[in-house]
Amino acid sequence: MDYYSRRISKLIEELSSLPGIGGKSAQRLAFHILHMPLEHVESLSSAILEARKTVTYCKQCFTLTDEELCPICRNGKRDPRTIMVVEDTRDLAAYEKTNKYGGVYHVLHGAISPMMGIGPNDIRLKELMQRLQGEVDEVIIATNSSLEGETTAMYISKLIKPTGIKVTRIASGVPVGGDLEYIDEMTLLRALEGRVEL
Amino acid sequence: MDYYSRRISKLIEELSSLPGIGGKSAQRLAFHILHMPLEHVESLSSAILEARKTVTYCKQCFTLTDEELCPICRNGKRDPRTIMVVEDTRDLAAYEKTNKYGGVYHVLHGAISPMMGIGPNDIRLKELMQRLQGEVDEVIIATNSSLEGETTAMYISKLIKPTGIKVTRIASGVPVGGDLEYIDEMTLLRALEGRVEL
Repeated sequence: MDYYSRRISKLIEELSSLPGIGGKSAQRLAFHILHMPLEHVESLSSAILEARKTVTYCKQCFTLTDEELCPICRNGKRDPRTIMVVEDTRDLAAYEKTNKYGGVYHVLHGAISPMMGIGPNDIRLKELMQRLQGEVDEVIIATNSSLEGETTAMYISKLIKPTGIKVTRIASGVPVGGDLEYIDEMTLLRALEGRVEL
Repeated sequence: MDYYSRRISKLIEELSSLPGIGGKSAQRLAFHILHMPLEHVESLSSAILEARKTVTYCKQCFTLTDEELCPICRNGKRDPRTIMVVEDTRDLAAYEKTNKYGGVYHVLHGAISPMMGIGPNDIRLKELMQRLQGEVDEVIIATNSSLEGETTAMYISKLIKPTGIKVTRIASGVPVGGDLEYIDEMTLLRALEGRVEL
Protein backbone atom coordinates (compact mmCIF):
# COMPACT_ATOMS: atom_id res chain seq x y z
CA MET A 1 0.00 0.00 0.00
CA ASP A 2 2.89 2.40 -0.64
CA TYR A 3 0.59 4.36 -2.96
CA TYR A 4 -1.24 5.58 0.13
CA SER A 5 0.56 7.88 2.52
CA ARG A 6 1.63 6.44 5.86
CA ARG A 7 -1.30 7.47 8.01
CA ILE A 8 -3.89 6.43 5.42
CA SER A 9 -2.20 3.01 5.09
CA LYS A 10 -2.14 2.68 8.85
CA LEU A 11 -5.86 3.48 9.07
CA ILE A 12 -6.73 0.89 6.38
CA GLU A 13 -4.55 -1.69 8.11
CA GLU A 14 -6.16 -1.08 11.51
CA LEU A 15 -9.68 -1.29 10.06
CA SER A 16 -8.96 -4.47 8.12
CA SER A 17 -7.80 -6.18 11.31
CA LEU A 18 -11.39 -6.03 12.57
CA PRO A 19 -13.58 -9.13 12.09
CA GLY A 20 -15.69 -9.21 8.94
CA ILE A 21 -13.86 -6.25 7.39
CA GLY A 22 -11.79 -7.26 4.38
CA GLY A 23 -9.33 -5.17 2.41
CA LYS A 24 -11.93 -3.56 0.16
CA SER A 25 -14.32 -2.68 3.00
CA ALA A 26 -11.43 -1.29 5.03
CA GLN A 27 -10.51 1.00 2.15
CA ARG A 28 -14.09 2.14 1.70
CA LEU A 29 -14.44 2.79 5.43
CA ALA A 30 -11.12 4.61 5.58
CA PHE A 31 -12.04 6.99 2.77
CA HIS A 32 -15.44 7.53 4.31
CA ILE A 33 -13.73 8.49 7.58
CA LEU A 34 -11.31 10.80 5.76
CA HIS A 35 -14.29 12.65 4.32
CA MET A 36 -16.28 12.82 7.56
CA PRO A 37 -16.47 16.12 9.50
CA LEU A 38 -13.65 16.23 12.07
CA GLU A 39 -16.12 16.35 15.02
CA HIS A 40 -17.70 13.08 13.91
CA VAL A 41 -14.31 11.44 13.61
CA GLU A 42 -13.33 12.67 17.07
CA SER A 43 -16.55 11.28 18.43
CA LEU A 44 -16.01 7.88 16.75
CA SER A 45 -12.39 7.69 17.86
CA SER A 46 -13.18 8.55 21.46
CA ALA A 47 -16.23 6.25 21.61
CA ILE A 48 -13.93 3.36 20.72
CA LEU A 49 -11.31 4.22 23.31
CA GLU A 50 -13.72 5.26 26.07
CA ALA A 51 -15.84 2.13 25.78
CA ARG A 52 -12.78 -0.11 25.91
CA LYS A 53 -11.13 1.82 28.76
CA THR A 54 -14.16 1.84 31.01
CA VAL A 55 -15.58 -1.58 30.22
CA THR A 56 -15.89 -3.91 33.16
CA TYR A 57 -18.15 -6.72 34.39
CA CYS A 58 -21.37 -6.03 36.28
CA LYS A 59 -20.55 -7.22 39.81
CA GLN A 60 -23.86 -9.07 39.96
CA CYS A 61 -24.58 -10.62 36.55
CA PHE A 62 -21.14 -10.21 34.91
CA THR A 63 -22.44 -8.66 31.71
CA LEU A 64 -20.11 -6.11 30.12
CA THR A 65 -20.90 -2.64 31.40
CA ASP A 66 -19.15 0.58 32.33
CA GLU A 67 -20.58 0.80 35.83
CA GLU A 68 -20.52 -1.34 38.96
CA LEU A 69 -24.03 -2.60 38.27
CA CYS A 70 -25.48 -2.91 34.77
CA PRO A 71 -28.73 -1.13 33.81
CA ILE A 72 -30.72 -4.37 34.21
CA CYS A 73 -29.43 -5.30 37.67
CA ARG A 74 -30.00 -1.68 38.75
CA ASN A 75 -33.60 -1.72 37.49
CA GLY A 76 -35.91 -2.20 40.46
CA LYS A 77 -38.71 -3.43 38.19
CA ARG A 78 -36.85 -6.58 37.19
CA ASP A 79 -37.48 -9.75 39.16
CA PRO A 80 -34.18 -10.77 40.81
CA ARG A 81 -35.58 -14.19 41.68
CA THR A 82 -35.58 -15.35 38.06
CA ILE A 83 -32.11 -15.64 36.53
CA MET A 84 -31.53 -16.38 32.85
CA VAL A 85 -28.07 -17.85 32.18
CA VAL A 86 -26.55 -16.81 28.83
CA GLU A 87 -23.16 -17.31 27.21
CA ASP A 88 -22.40 -13.67 26.48
CA THR A 89 -23.66 -10.10 26.58
CA ARG A 90 -24.96 -10.27 23.01
CA ASP A 91 -27.23 -13.18 23.94
CA LEU A 92 -28.56 -11.07 26.79
CA ALA A 93 -29.23 -8.27 24.28
CA ALA A 94 -31.07 -10.73 22.01
CA TYR A 95 -33.50 -11.62 24.80
CA GLU A 96 -33.87 -7.99 25.86
CA LYS A 97 -35.04 -7.14 22.36
CA THR A 98 -38.07 -9.36 22.87
CA ASN A 99 -39.16 -6.87 25.56
CA LYS A 100 -40.97 -9.71 27.33
CA TYR A 101 -38.46 -11.05 29.82
CA GLY A 102 -38.76 -9.46 33.25
CA GLY A 103 -36.11 -11.37 35.18
CA VAL A 104 -32.38 -10.77 35.45
CA TYR A 105 -29.42 -12.46 33.80
CA HIS A 106 -26.16 -14.22 34.50
CA VAL A 107 -23.50 -13.99 31.80
CA LEU A 108 -21.09 -16.93 31.73
CA HIS A 109 -18.66 -15.47 29.18
CA GLY A 110 -18.28 -18.73 27.32
CA ALA A 111 -19.43 -22.31 27.41
CA ILE A 112 -17.80 -25.52 28.55
CA SER A 113 -15.80 -26.97 25.65
CA PRO A 114 -13.43 -29.87 26.31
CA MET A 115 -12.29 -29.53 22.66
CA MET A 116 -11.14 -25.96 23.26
CA GLY A 117 -9.89 -26.74 26.74
CA ILE A 118 -12.57 -24.60 28.40
CA GLY A 119 -13.72 -26.14 31.66
CA PRO A 120 -16.32 -25.14 34.28
CA ASN A 121 -13.76 -22.97 36.06
CA ASP A 122 -13.08 -20.91 32.93
CA ILE A 123 -16.60 -19.47 32.83
CA ARG A 124 -18.53 -17.51 35.48
CA LEU A 125 -20.11 -20.57 37.03
CA LYS A 126 -18.79 -20.20 40.57
CA GLU A 127 -20.28 -16.69 40.55
CA LEU A 128 -23.66 -18.12 39.49
CA MET A 129 -23.61 -20.66 42.32
CA GLN A 130 -22.81 -17.85 44.76
CA ARG A 131 -25.84 -15.89 43.55
CA LEU A 132 -28.02 -18.91 44.21
CA GLN A 133 -27.25 -18.57 47.93
CA GLY A 134 -29.72 -15.67 47.83
CA GLU A 135 -33.45 -15.94 47.14
CA VAL A 136 -33.90 -17.42 43.68
CA ASP A 137 -37.00 -19.14 42.31
CA GLU A 138 -35.86 -20.23 38.87
CA VAL A 139 -32.75 -20.49 36.74
CA ILE A 140 -33.51 -20.48 33.00
CA ILE A 141 -30.61 -21.86 31.01
CA ALA A 142 -30.39 -20.04 27.69
CA THR A 143 -26.97 -21.15 26.47
CA ASN A 144 -26.74 -21.70 22.71
CA SER A 145 -28.17 -24.76 21.07
CA SER A 146 -24.66 -25.92 20.10
CA LEU A 147 -22.73 -28.90 21.47
CA GLU A 148 -20.93 -26.59 23.93
CA GLY A 149 -24.13 -24.82 24.89
CA GLU A 150 -25.93 -28.11 25.56
CA THR A 151 -22.99 -29.50 27.53
CA THR A 152 -22.94 -26.36 29.65
CA ALA A 153 -26.71 -26.54 30.19
CA MET A 154 -26.48 -30.17 31.35
CA TYR A 155 -23.57 -29.38 33.65
CA ILE A 156 -25.31 -26.40 35.25
CA SER A 157 -28.61 -28.23 35.73
CA LYS A 158 -26.83 -31.07 37.55
CA LEU A 159 -25.07 -28.54 39.74
CA ILE A 160 -28.25 -26.67 40.66
CA LYS A 161 -30.74 -29.55 41.06
CA PRO A 162 -29.53 -30.51 44.59
CA THR A 163 -30.25 -26.96 45.80
CA GLY A 164 -33.95 -27.45 45.04
CA ILE A 165 -34.11 -24.37 42.82
CA LYS A 166 -36.19 -24.87 39.67
CA VAL A 167 -33.97 -25.19 36.56
CA THR A 168 -35.41 -24.84 33.06
CA ARG A 169 -33.97 -24.83 29.55
CA ILE A 170 -35.29 -22.70 26.69
CA ALA A 171 -37.06 -24.82 24.05
CA SER A 172 -35.41 -26.15 20.92
CA GLY A 173 -37.49 -26.45 17.76
CA VAL A 174 -38.46 -25.00 14.44
CA PRO A 175 -37.92 -21.21 14.31
CA VAL A 176 -41.09 -19.15 13.87
CA GLY A 177 -41.67 -18.65 10.15
CA GLY A 178 -39.20 -21.45 9.43
CA ASP A 179 -39.86 -23.59 6.37
CA LEU A 180 -39.52 -27.27 7.35
CA GLU A 181 -37.92 -28.01 4.01
CA TYR A 182 -34.87 -25.94 4.89
CA ILE A 183 -34.45 -26.99 8.50
CA ASP A 184 -31.80 -29.50 9.52
CA GLU A 185 -32.69 -32.97 10.78
CA MET A 186 -31.45 -32.36 14.33
CA THR A 187 -33.79 -29.41 14.74
CA LEU A 188 -36.70 -31.35 13.24
CA LEU A 189 -36.10 -34.20 15.70
CA ARG A 190 -35.89 -31.76 18.61
CA ALA A 191 -39.15 -30.16 17.52
CA LEU A 192 -40.78 -33.59 17.41
CA GLU A 193 -39.47 -34.61 20.84
CA GLY A 194 -40.56 -31.31 22.33
CA ARG A 195 -44.07 -31.43 20.84
CA VAL A 196 -46.86 -30.01 23.01
CA GLU A 197 -50.50 -31.01 23.18
CA LEU A 198 -52.99 -28.63 21.53
CA MET B 1 -30.39 -0.22 23.61
CA ASP B 2 -30.92 0.53 27.30
CA TYR B 3 -29.79 -3.02 28.10
CA TYR B 4 -26.27 -1.91 27.18
CA SER B 5 -24.52 0.61 29.37
CA ARG B 6 -24.09 4.11 28.02
CA ARG B 7 -20.59 3.86 26.58
CA ILE B 8 -21.26 0.50 24.94
CA SER B 9 -24.45 1.87 23.35
CA LYS B 10 -22.53 4.90 22.16
CA LEU B 11 -19.84 2.71 20.58
CA ILE B 12 -22.44 0.57 18.77
CA GLU B 13 -24.23 3.70 17.57
CA GLU B 14 -21.01 5.27 16.25
CA LEU B 15 -20.00 2.09 14.44
CA SER B 16 -23.41 1.59 12.87
CA SER B 17 -23.25 5.10 11.39
CA LEU B 18 -20.42 3.90 9.12
CA PRO B 19 -21.34 2.80 5.58
CA GLY B 20 -22.00 -0.92 5.11
CA ILE B 21 -22.15 -1.57 8.85
CA GLY B 22 -25.63 -2.48 10.03
CA GLY B 23 -26.89 -2.95 13.56
CA LYS B 24 -25.75 -6.56 13.91
CA SER B 25 -22.27 -5.93 12.50
CA ALA B 26 -21.88 -2.88 14.72
CA GLN B 27 -22.68 -5.01 17.78
CA ARG B 28 -20.25 -7.70 16.72
CA LEU B 29 -17.52 -5.13 16.07
CA ALA B 30 -18.21 -3.36 19.36
CA PHE B 31 -17.86 -6.55 21.40
CA HIS B 32 -14.75 -7.47 19.47
CA ILE B 33 -13.28 -4.08 20.36
CA LEU B 34 -14.28 -4.47 24.01
CA HIS B 35 -12.32 -7.72 24.10
CA MET B 36 -9.24 -6.41 22.27
CA PRO B 37 -6.06 -5.61 24.24
CA LEU B 38 -6.09 -1.95 25.28
CA GLU B 39 -2.96 -1.15 23.21
CA HIS B 40 -4.68 -2.36 20.04
CA VAL B 41 -7.73 -0.26 20.78
CA GLU B 42 -5.56 2.79 21.43
CA SER B 43 -3.81 2.17 18.14
CA LEU B 44 -7.12 1.82 16.24
CA SER B 45 -8.61 4.89 17.88
CA SER B 46 -5.60 7.06 17.19
CA ALA B 47 -5.18 5.77 13.61
CA ILE B 48 -8.71 7.00 12.90
CA LEU B 49 -8.18 10.41 14.41
CA GLU B 50 -4.62 10.94 13.14
CA ALA B 51 -5.48 10.02 9.55
CA ARG B 52 -8.44 12.37 9.52
CA LYS B 53 -6.58 15.20 11.25
CA THR B 54 -3.57 15.15 8.96
CA VAL B 55 -5.26 14.32 5.67
CA THR B 56 -4.75 16.85 2.92
CA TYR B 57 -4.46 16.94 -0.87
CA CYS B 58 -1.16 16.32 -2.66
CA LYS B 59 -0.30 19.75 -4.02
CA GLN B 60 0.55 18.21 -7.40
CA CYS B 61 -1.94 15.43 -8.13
CA PHE B 62 -4.56 16.17 -5.43
CA THR B 63 -4.77 12.64 -4.13
CA LEU B 64 -5.48 12.33 -0.39
CA THR B 65 -2.23 12.21 1.53
CA ASP B 66 -0.75 13.40 4.80
CA GLU B 67 2.21 15.21 3.25
CA GLU B 68 2.71 18.05 0.82
CA LEU B 69 3.53 15.63 -1.99
CA CYS B 70 2.12 12.09 -2.15
CA PRO B 71 4.43 9.05 -2.35
CA ILE B 72 3.84 8.74 -6.12
CA CYS B 73 4.57 12.39 -7.01
CA ARG B 74 7.67 12.21 -4.78
CA ASN B 75 8.91 9.04 -6.50
CA GLY B 76 11.66 10.02 -8.99
CA LYS B 77 11.16 6.81 -10.95
CA ARG B 78 7.67 7.75 -12.09
CA ASP B 79 7.26 9.47 -15.44
CA PRO B 80 5.76 12.93 -14.79
CA ARG B 81 5.00 13.38 -18.49
CA THR B 82 2.21 10.79 -18.45
CA ILE B 83 -0.78 11.75 -16.32
CA MET B 84 -3.67 9.41 -15.60
CA VAL B 85 -6.85 11.26 -14.62
CA VAL B 86 -9.01 9.40 -12.08
CA GLU B 87 -12.13 10.29 -10.10
CA ASP B 88 -10.81 9.51 -6.65
CA THR B 89 -7.91 8.17 -4.61
CA ARG B 90 -9.34 4.65 -4.54
CA ASP B 91 -9.29 4.53 -8.35
CA LEU B 92 -5.64 5.54 -8.20
CA ALA B 93 -5.06 2.68 -5.76
CA ALA B 94 -6.81 0.26 -8.12
CA TYR B 95 -4.36 1.10 -10.93
CA GLU B 96 -1.39 1.04 -8.57
CA LYS B 97 -2.24 -2.53 -7.67
CA THR B 98 -1.59 -3.58 -11.26
CA ASN B 99 2.07 -2.61 -10.65
CA LYS B 100 2.39 -1.79 -14.35
CA TYR B 101 1.63 1.89 -14.59
CA GLY B 102 4.74 4.07 -14.41
CA GLY B 103 3.23 7.52 -14.91
CA VAL B 104 1.67 9.88 -12.40
CA TYR B 105 -1.96 10.71 -11.60
CA HIS B 106 -4.40 13.54 -11.32
CA VAL B 107 -7.30 13.02 -8.92
CA LEU B 108 -10.45 14.97 -9.81
CA HIS B 109 -12.41 14.19 -6.64
CA GLY B 110 -15.63 13.59 -8.47
CA ALA B 111 -17.08 13.61 -11.96
CA ILE B 112 -19.25 16.07 -13.82
CA SER B 113 -22.90 15.31 -13.07
CA PRO B 114 -25.57 17.78 -14.17
CA MET B 115 -28.10 15.60 -12.30
CA MET B 116 -26.25 16.09 -9.01
CA GLY B 117 -25.41 19.69 -9.81
CA ILE B 118 -21.68 18.95 -10.10
CA GLY B 119 -20.09 21.07 -12.82
CA PRO B 120 -16.54 21.34 -14.19
CA ASN B 121 -15.63 23.87 -11.50
CA ASP B 122 -16.57 21.49 -8.70
CA ILE B 123 -13.84 19.00 -9.53
CA ARG B 124 -10.05 19.52 -9.78
CA LEU B 125 -10.10 20.32 -13.48
CA LYS B 126 -8.57 23.79 -13.34
CA GLU B 127 -5.65 22.24 -11.48
CA LEU B 128 -5.25 19.63 -14.23
CA MET B 129 -5.15 22.32 -16.92
CA GLN B 130 -2.51 24.18 -14.91
CA ARG B 131 -0.36 21.04 -14.76
CA LEU B 132 -0.56 20.77 -18.53
CA GLN B 133 1.38 24.05 -18.80
CA GLY B 134 4.41 21.93 -17.89
CA GLU B 135 5.94 19.20 -20.04
CA VAL B 136 3.29 16.54 -20.57
CA ASP B 137 3.20 13.93 -23.33
CA GLU B 138 -0.06 12.15 -22.65
CA VAL B 139 -3.19 12.43 -20.53
CA ILE B 140 -4.91 9.08 -19.97
CA ILE B 141 -8.52 9.54 -18.88
CA ALA B 142 -9.47 6.76 -16.48
CA THR B 143 -12.73 8.10 -15.08
CA ASN B 144 -15.36 5.44 -14.41
CA SER B 145 -17.34 3.88 -17.19
CA SER B 146 -20.56 5.45 -15.83
CA LEU B 147 -22.60 8.22 -17.43
CA GLU B 148 -20.82 10.79 -15.24
CA GLY B 149 -17.41 9.29 -15.93
CA GLU B 150 -17.99 9.31 -19.68
CA THR B 151 -19.32 12.87 -19.62
CA THR B 152 -16.24 13.96 -17.70
CA ALA B 153 -13.96 12.13 -20.12
CA MET B 154 -15.56 13.84 -23.12
CA TYR B 155 -15.39 17.23 -21.45
CA ILE B 156 -11.72 16.86 -20.52
CA SER B 157 -10.71 15.58 -23.93
CA LYS B 158 -12.34 18.58 -25.64
CA LEU B 159 -10.54 20.88 -23.23
CA ILE B 160 -7.12 19.31 -23.82
CA LYS B 161 -7.23 18.65 -27.58
CA PRO B 162 -6.45 22.29 -28.54
CA THR B 163 -3.20 22.14 -26.51
CA GLY B 164 -1.88 19.41 -28.81
CA ILE B 165 -1.24 17.02 -25.90
CA LYS B 166 -2.20 13.42 -26.65
CA VAL B 167 -5.43 12.42 -24.84
CA THR B 168 -6.44 8.78 -24.47
CA ARG B 169 -9.27 6.92 -22.73
CA ILE B 170 -8.93 3.51 -21.09
CA ALA B 171 -10.74 0.80 -23.06
CA SER B 172 -14.27 -0.37 -22.33
CA GLY B 173 -15.15 -3.99 -22.91
CA VAL B 174 -15.65 -7.44 -21.46
CA PRO B 175 -13.75 -7.90 -18.16
CA VAL B 176 -11.02 -10.54 -18.24
CA GLY B 177 -12.56 -13.86 -17.21
CA GLY B 178 -16.02 -12.38 -17.81
CA ASP B 179 -18.70 -14.76 -19.02
CA LEU B 180 -20.53 -13.15 -21.96
CA GLU B 181 -23.80 -14.60 -20.74
CA TYR B 182 -23.72 -12.43 -17.61
CA ILE B 183 -22.50 -9.21 -19.15
CA ASP B 184 -24.87 -6.34 -19.86
CA GLU B 185 -25.74 -5.28 -23.41
CA MET B 186 -24.00 -1.90 -23.19
CA THR B 187 -20.72 -3.55 -22.32
CA LEU B 188 -21.13 -6.12 -25.09
CA LEU B 189 -21.76 -3.32 -27.63
CA ARG B 190 -18.73 -1.40 -26.37
CA ALA B 191 -16.59 -4.50 -26.69
CA LEU B 192 -17.82 -4.96 -30.27
CA GLU B 193 -17.18 -1.32 -31.21
CA GLY B 194 -13.74 -1.45 -29.66
CA ARG B 195 -12.71 -4.70 -31.34
CA VAL B 196 -9.08 -4.96 -32.43
CA GLU B 197 -7.58 -6.88 -35.33
CA LEU B 198 -5.74 -10.11 -34.46
